[in-house]
Amino acid sequence: MAKIKVEKAQAMTSELVARFSALVGKENAITDKGLLETYLVEPRGLYSGMTPLVLRPASTAEVSAVMKLASETKTPVVPQGGNTGLVGAQQPDQSGSQLILSFARLNRIRSMDRLGKVALVEAGVVLKTLQKKAEELGCLFPLSLGSEGIAQIGGNLSTNAGGTAVLSYGNVRELCLGLEVVLPDGRVLDDLRSVRKDNSGYDLKNLFIGAEGTLGIITAAVMRLFSLPRGRIVAYAGILSPAAALQLFALAQSYAGPMLTGFELMSRLSMQFSLAYNKHVREPLPKTYSWYVLLEISSSSSSDEARNVMETILARAMRDGIAKNAVIAINKAQEQAFWQLREDMSLAQKSQGSSIKHDISVPVAAVPDFLVIAGRIVDEMLPGARVVAFGHVGDGNLHYNVSQPIGADKAEFLARSQEVSHRIHTLVMQCGGAFSAEHGIGQMKQDALMTFKSSVAIDLMRDIKKLFDPQGIMNPGKIFSACTTR
Amino acid sequence: MAKIKVEKAQAMTSELVARFSALVGKENAITDKGLLETYLVEPRGLYSGMTPLVLRPASTAEVSAVMKLASETKTPVVPQGGNTGLVGAQQPDQSGSQLILSFARLNRIRSMDRLGKVALVEAGVVLKTLQKKAEELGCLFPLSLGSEGIAQIGGNLSTNAGGTAVLSYGNVRELCLGLEVVLPDGRVLDDLRSVRKDNSGYDLKNLFIGAEGTLGIITAAVMRLFSLPRGRIVAYAGILSPAAALQLFALAQSYAGPMLTGFELMSRLSMQFSLAYNKHVREPLPKTYSWYVLLEISSSSSSDEARNVMETILARAMRDGIAKNAVIAINKAQEQAFWQLREDMSLAQKSQGSSIKHDISVPVAAVPDFLVIAGRIVDEMLPGARVVAFGHVGDGNLHYNVSQPIGADKAEFLARSQEVSHRIHTLVMQCGGAFSAEHGIGQMKQDALMTFKSSVAIDLMRDIKKLFDPQGIMNPGKIFSACTTR
Repeated sequence: MAKIKVEKAQAMTSELVARFSALVGKENAITDKGLLETYLVEPRGLYSGMTPLVLRPASTAEVSAVMKLASETKTPVVPQGGNTGLVGAQQPDQSGSQLILSFARLNRIRSMDRLGKVALVEAGVVLKTLQKKAEELGCLFPLSLGSEGIAQIGGNLSTNAGGTAVLSYGNVRELCLGLEVVLPDGRVLDDLRSVRKDNSGYDLKNLFIGAEGTLGIITAAVMRLFSLPRGRIVAYAGILSPAAALQLFALAQSYAGPMLTGFELMSRLSMQFSLAYNKHVREPLPKTYSWYVLLEISSSSSSDEARNVMETILARAMRDGIAKNAVIAINKAQEQAFWQLREDMSLAQKSQGSSIKHDISVPVAAVPDFLVIAGRIVDEMLPGARVVAFGHVGDGNLHYNVSQPIGADKAEFLARSQEVSHRIHTLVMQCGGAFSAEHGIGQMKQDALMTFKSSVAIDLMRDIKKLFDPQGIMNPGKIFSACTTR
Repeated sequence: MAKIKVEKAQAMTSELVARFSALVGKENAITDKGLLETYLVEPRGLYSGMTPLVLRPASTAEVSAVMKLASETKTPVVPQGGNTGLVGAQQPDQSGSQLILSFARLNRIRSMDRLGKVALVEAGVVLKTLQKKAEELGCLFPLSLGSEGIAQIGGNLSTNAGGTAVLSYGNVRELCLGLEVVLPDGRVLDDLRSVRKDNSGYDLKNLFIGAEGTLGIITAAVMRLFSLPRGRIVAYAGILSPAAALQLFALAQSYAGPMLTGFELMSRLSMQFSLAYNKHVREPLPKTYSWYVLLEISSSSSSDEARNVMETILARAMRDGIAKNAVIAINKAQEQAFWQLREDMSLAQKSQGSSIKHDISVPVAAVPDFLVIAGRIVDEMLPGARVVAFGHVGDGNLHYNVSQPIGADKAEFLARSQEVSHRIHTLVMQCGGAFSAEHGIGQMKQDALMTFKSSVAIDLMRDIKKLFDPQGIMNPGKIFSACTTR
């Protein structure tokens, strides 16, 4: 692999801005500097860029027209959903040569089918909206994440979003039956299938899912819906170690099978951070424990069944010394409070100063060893730093975050990021895990991709990128850096 | 698209046969005409070919060496698993220029993990073997199909196999976490991940799954395992119409959710055929009904729970007139007999003369209309022909088979195949369905692919084929015909 010098990209001319704007109507083309601002920075403020133009198309045909002109004029296009991504995949570069395509107006739910359990939605539909509409229909759309009130389905698909419900329902990839995609040259791939079994040729759908907008633009999708559970029970268990969490997980899996819809691990420090942030929420258990597990059981048949299964699991866990104590939420409000302690963890950590974050997964059985060795690495490299480990341990996905030592210099602490992350990621790969479990590559993890992905995989990925986007106009500089070639 | 004349392929020279044989050891290279025979014809006898050589490698390294030599000498390679495929994807052509790669010796289970619920298996592991080994470990490998005693995991993956358990557990695609693939040039892609969350770059895995060996050779895979249910209940319901089947499906889904592990529809004629074939099996219900549904409910928590849910569903269905009668299997033997009536349908139909078969899926809600209109098409085109409709209606997948009229001329009947299938497939596509739900394209459905798939999808598929296999040595003539190019 060799780096080549790239010509400095020229900012878009006002004539080009006008030509693009005409395709969606001037009122849907944003050029005002003040209004552009919100599109240019991502939530953590780590990545920002420049653009003279945000386009807000309202139809697939308009997206196609935009890409035809982009292709003709070699104008780079950066697709952007709810702008909640955490790896800088939705920001343009600093050149001012790239336009942003926003999906806020491409946001219709085209159809929903209660019996067939599918919804045909456009890319700009907000996740929370789809959850609500599904519930109104008596169905469940299970994807659930912290940013669900803002994140859009198109972005969820482009990043193969995960979240807390993956354990039972799968990643977004498994929730999607068909796609509509506008290719970089403007052609429209209509693959909006709504059947679960279709073996008619290569699977194109899964290439676009998780591609972070670098191969084409997802404009609509057929998403799976599920039966709305009749009963749901949430509990906290206090345990002594991650090894005990795995024993509890095995027990829960055995009795609940697909009814186990949540299994989240939290360290005591994570719990403390979250309680400090959520001052109105009471600590779930009377005593403190080194680790906590949040369990959720859902039953299609009844609340009683969900409760029976939960009680069986917790009783056995207590009897066998796996759990030291446990409490079941007594009502909806407490259930929400239990989940809130888990879901506000990122916000809670923010108030404790700066942090170095790792979105990783390891095989479930490797979680305890990983935590011990990773802890040693952090202690050695960053004495006094506070490990905030929590996550969807049921699928091996941990958010292994490291908060700065109390009173430490922020910049000095963050300067060690790359070095620390490299060692944590190296350990993850030794465990047979993934250095990006949920958030993707974007701009943030390109070095890790080049370091840890096999060269055969990288070569195939590059070949596919060139095949689909020979001009390199589709979200350039994401996944692969703009200045690397072979 | 233009057809071009292809040079007539030359049969392999004996020198080339010897070079290939040396790579796996002479004792693992089959050249004896009598022994070659079984590899050359598929189960229905519709497709057959010629080859001077079947190679039986025992390691990924040997497969890689074979492909390197194949690439160097431009020798076409046809991968073959259990040779149970139904569309001719695993047979060579008639030229004698193509060698067969058999996976019978590449059949180790490399590892199994009870807690992490994964098995790392080689391509030649027989499906039944994996089911058994999983059960010995206290786990479930849910993939289940008629040919499971012979079919191999590599073939299951290459055809994205479905079967009866898709409803609750998904297609093979959803059961696979990672792959090891030998590329046409011999490079090995090691993508044997065993974590459920990994968003580090493009999804290469799903390109190879369902590609019928045309992009590379799957040599090993990480497959998901599940909790072994503690209880399982099987029942037959007698109903009046496919519309009633959908009402029953909605009811069953609502109360059972993911516990609904089987929902199979059968017409009266299908039941008659199967009873005639299974002379020792008693008719499940005392009276006859126009349609039957087989329901299976599985519970992780207990047999009682499975029974409770089944009884709730059937009681409501009877009360509301959706089901006219129903019977629950009283023991393991009856349970098996109930399933046998469904699973022996293909064999049962064989004894009723020749048939024209359609492996299709339509959106669940469209099943009743599809059956009415398709019935009219058959009546009009083939008076006296007997429609044998059955299948996994819970996911819209029907085996819509048409048996010849009693006493009709076999050849005359089969001569209408293409014409009839074209009209059935056209109807399927109008319903928003798939003309190949489970079996794939192979040699059989290439015309349908060209007719019904969008040109954008076909173009992308062709581009991908050329990218991965520029020499066209990887199972040529499958999915795409050997003599079509752009």
